[in-house]
Amino acid sequence: MARDERGVTPQSEDFSAWYNELVFKAELVDRGPVRGTMVIRPYGYRIWELLQSDLDRRIKETGHANAYFPLLIPESYLRREAEHIEGFAPELAVVTHAGGKDLEEPLVIRPTSETIVGEMMAKWIGSHRDLPLLLNQWANVVRWEMRPRMFLRTTEFLWQEGHTAHSDATDAMSETMLALGFYQDLAAQTAAMPVIAGEKTAGERFAGAERTFTIEAMMRDGRAMQAGTSHYLGTNFARAFGIQYTDTGDVPQFCHTTSWGMSSRMIGGVIMTHGDDQGLVLPPGLAPYQIVIVPIGRGEQDGEVGAAAQDLAARLTRKGIRVHVDDRPYLSPGFKFNHWELRGVPIRLELGPRDLAAGTVLMSRRLSTEQRPGDKPRPGHVKEAVSLDSAPARLSFELTAFQAMLLQRATQFRDERTIRADTWADFAAAVATGWALALACEDRACEDQIKAETTATPRCIPLDGEPDAGPCIRCGQPSAYGKRVLFGRSY
Amino acid sequence: MARDERGVTPQSEDFSAWYNELVFKAELVDRGPVRGTMVIRPYGYRIWELLQSDLDRRIKETGHANAYFPLLIPESYLRREAEHIEGFAPELAVVTHAGGKDLEEPLVIRPTSETIVGEMMAKWIGSHRDLPLLLNQWANVVRWEMRPRMFLRTTEFLWQEGHTAHSDATDAMSETMLALGFYQDLAAQTAAMPVIAGEKTAGERFAGAERTFTIEAMMRDGRAMQAGTSHYLGTNFARAFGIQYTDTGDVPQFCHTTSWGMSSRMIGGVIMTHGDDQGLVLPPGLAPYQIVIVPIGRGEQDGEVGAAAQDLAARLTRKGIRVHVDDRPYLSPGFKFNHWELRGVPIRLELGPRDLAAGTVLMSRRLSTEQRPGDKPRPGHVKEAVSLDSAPARLSFELTAFQAMLLQRATQFRDERTIRADTWADFAAAVATGWALALACEDRACEDQIKAETTATPRCIPLDGEPDAGPCIRCGQPSAYGKRVLFGRSY
Repeated sequence: MARDERGVTPQSEDFSAWYNELVFKAELVDRGPVRGTMVIRPYGYRIWELLQSDLDRRIKETGHANAYFPLLIPESYLRREAEHIEGFAPELAVVTHAGGKDLEEPLVIRPTSETIVGEMMAKWIGSHRDLPLLLNQWANVVRWEMRPRMFLRTTEFLWQEGHTAHSDATDAMSETMLALGFYQDLAAQTAAMPVIAGEKTAGERFAGAERTFTIEAMMRDGRAMQAGTSHYLGTNFARAFGIQYTDTGDVPQFCHTTSWGMSSRMIGGVIMTHGDDQGLVLPPGLAPYQIVIVPIGRGEQDGEVGAAAQDLAARLTRKGIRVHVDDRPYLSPGFKFNHWELRGVPIRLELGPRDLAAGTVLMSRRLSTEQRPGDKPRPGHVKEAVSLDSAPARLSFELTAFQAMLLQRATQFRDERTIRADTWADFAAAVATGWALALACEDRACEDQIKAETTATPRCIPLDGEPDAGPCIRCGQPSAYGKRVLFGRSY
Repeated sequence: MARDERGVTPQSEDFSAWYNELVFKAELVDRGPVRGTMVIRPYGYRIWELLQSDLDRRIKETGHANAYFPLLIPESYLRREAEHIEGFAPELAVVTHAGGKDLEEPLVIRPTSETIVGEMMAKWIGSHRDLPLLLNQWANVVRWEMRPRMFLRTTEFLWQEGHTAHSDATDAMSETMLALGFYQDLAAQTAAMPVIAGEKTAGERFAGAERTFTIEAMMRDGRAMQAGTSHYLGTNFARAFGIQYTDTGDVPQFCHTTSWGMSSRMIGGVIMTHGDDQGLVLPPGLAPYQIVIVPIGRGEQDGEVGAAAQDLAARLTRKGIRVHVDDRPYLSPGFKFNHWELRGVPIRLELGPRDLAAGTVLMSRRLSTEQRPGDKPRPGHVKEAVSLDSAPARLSFELTAFQAMLLQRATQFRDERTIRADTWADFAAAVATGWALALACEDRACEDQIKAETTATPRCIPLDGEPDAGPCIRCGQPSAYGKRVLFGRSY
């Protein structure tokens, strides 16, 4: 299947070309026939499954239940919440014909499900005893994309959308922050992506939300990627769909609702956080294969070496490691090394007759743990003989260390490119290569001006920002928010 | 949430009404706003997740990988395989408008994905080394339904669709049978549904297939439900989409492909295989809660009884049992008993102060294991005190026994209603209440005649049927297939 194994454009030359080439060459995706659609190939889909199972566990452990709502929504539903339809109208795909007939009312393919979930919540909720109602859905959604990009912006994407209803604002806000915490923890612990959690400014809010929270990750070109959002919807959708409950005094009240989502775009974030000129670098938490064993020499398939490779793989599997033996007889070891390097496998093991005789296996990490940001990558250059007997324990340790190294490396990279800017010159310089933390007013026109001049936008008001105030970085008016705002160019 | 806990129409009075009421009352589903669409509520969706994880394991263990293909397919793709478009055209939902514009080519929402997968396989497959290509997708599909019915026939449904490509017919046929085996084993082992595996006659084949295989289950009204199908597609789609490989002699050849699917309709089958007048009866393999504990008496939530219930639940959980404690203080024990009976929980445990003092818990099975088909159901009537100390081991055993009992009961029910019919009168009588095994010709007009007179159709030619031949049950012409055909009315 690997018919084009040549390298990719270096990141430093053209980051965008690097990304666009890599997602195809690493066989993560292919183009769908409809503009902006994406086929997620097995290697890419496995990463999605690993993300899914991690997040699904967090969602279920906290009392949420999965459900499934229909793909097709009457267009009129979206119109019930004024800001919501305004935000989504340009992106809708519309079914006008079905079962051999023109439909009386056009149906939209869900761009998100607040409306149809709202309609159902209104039916299901009667009294305060039915609250909180904690739902989640794993689904595909469609938003027509003018500038599609694999994983990052596709016409159809996969995601999870949490939808919850609560008796009051306090409870709904706790839920909003709980969900944000899922994403923050998933990003850091599993994807090795350090993220800044914060609130969106008014101009960047979800269409129909009172407050929108986000996690923002820095890609290796210094741009920000929004990797998950959590919305406090107030009573906006409750009023639009009649989501009411009777309180303990038997008085009808509107519910306060939330919604929160993480999507297949997270895979794009993982690629752009860790990848290098040799290809993908996958965190062990999300690597389809954490370790690939390449048996070398005669008998790599059926002989002694092949048998030893299989035996080692079985021992690693029992240790809970995802391992693959690449014993394809018609490919050279060098080809295989490149193949798996491009695909970002954290650790490669080479096993030949001499290793076997010595009771060892040769380990190469995709990045050496000594490597620091700025170093030239030396993948596969530092090989180390590891005792076969102790391999499972040692490799478990190495995978943990590799995961920690990636998080540490990405954190350092981000911190070095995040500047507290107090002058416009510093600000402009900071957002050209990374992020700026700056004081800002809350005037939309001022935000637009900043964007026009630098292409940077307010990514979020970081939750853990120190209290701060002063003149707005752009217009000099008094700052809002009581703390600095994070600005950057974004995906 | 439970606002309407009254009973359902008895099966004997109106099976169809029983089903239609039960799926709503047990909170498995709700109606979507678009005709024929279904909301799968948490209790129903959990059953789907349990089916999914079981089948996904079987699929992965045999070397298949999951992938994801786009929802939207250019209408022209479906036209490339003549029988395929003919079969699906009446059921298509068509997107004509997207992103604020009319589309140049209408897009159909996938009714199944052979065409788009075929297009991709043609790109991905080069040589014999790329074969077999073993893919699977978990997805939603849309087929416009004129006579929708929750789970059984809905405009949108959830399913998995396997798609594989092989170098020759032999390999593709092995795959077709392997996938059929997944469904047969899943049905018997996990859903406690005995099924007849067999081949469809020409008139019942999938649109575009050379051969279609099915598993057929008997519902408690004697009708058949097709619970999974596996298709050998020959080179039909390979020729339509150019799925070719070069063989070992470097000669281009068409691949032989297969597809196979199981859907959320299986949940309908589980309901109609095991349910009774008191509600659902869920096999432990698919029960969201295998055991529900009802603490009784003062302190059911916070007191000694509540604590003991939680402790027991924790011990059962450690044993791998899915358990739920219903400690809602505002509902009576009787209400809770009915609530969980309606929802088909296999085993209920009651725990009150006297039980606790005696070191026991009171066990009621949803159906007693002594019960035989035809007996009046006695749910909850046979209670047995079980020692708290040995409860985890004992209840594990009881769940296994309950699962086995359901399979045995359903098998006996089916066998009693499956008649070898050699006269038309016997045939007509058999299919009025169950199934007939009869000799039949392969004339489509004769099949149509049988259907017109009895509403029965050929369900399949059972794989394990004994060799047999003679006159067709309807027309008297010589029988085809070399064995008897299974006939029945169907869902």
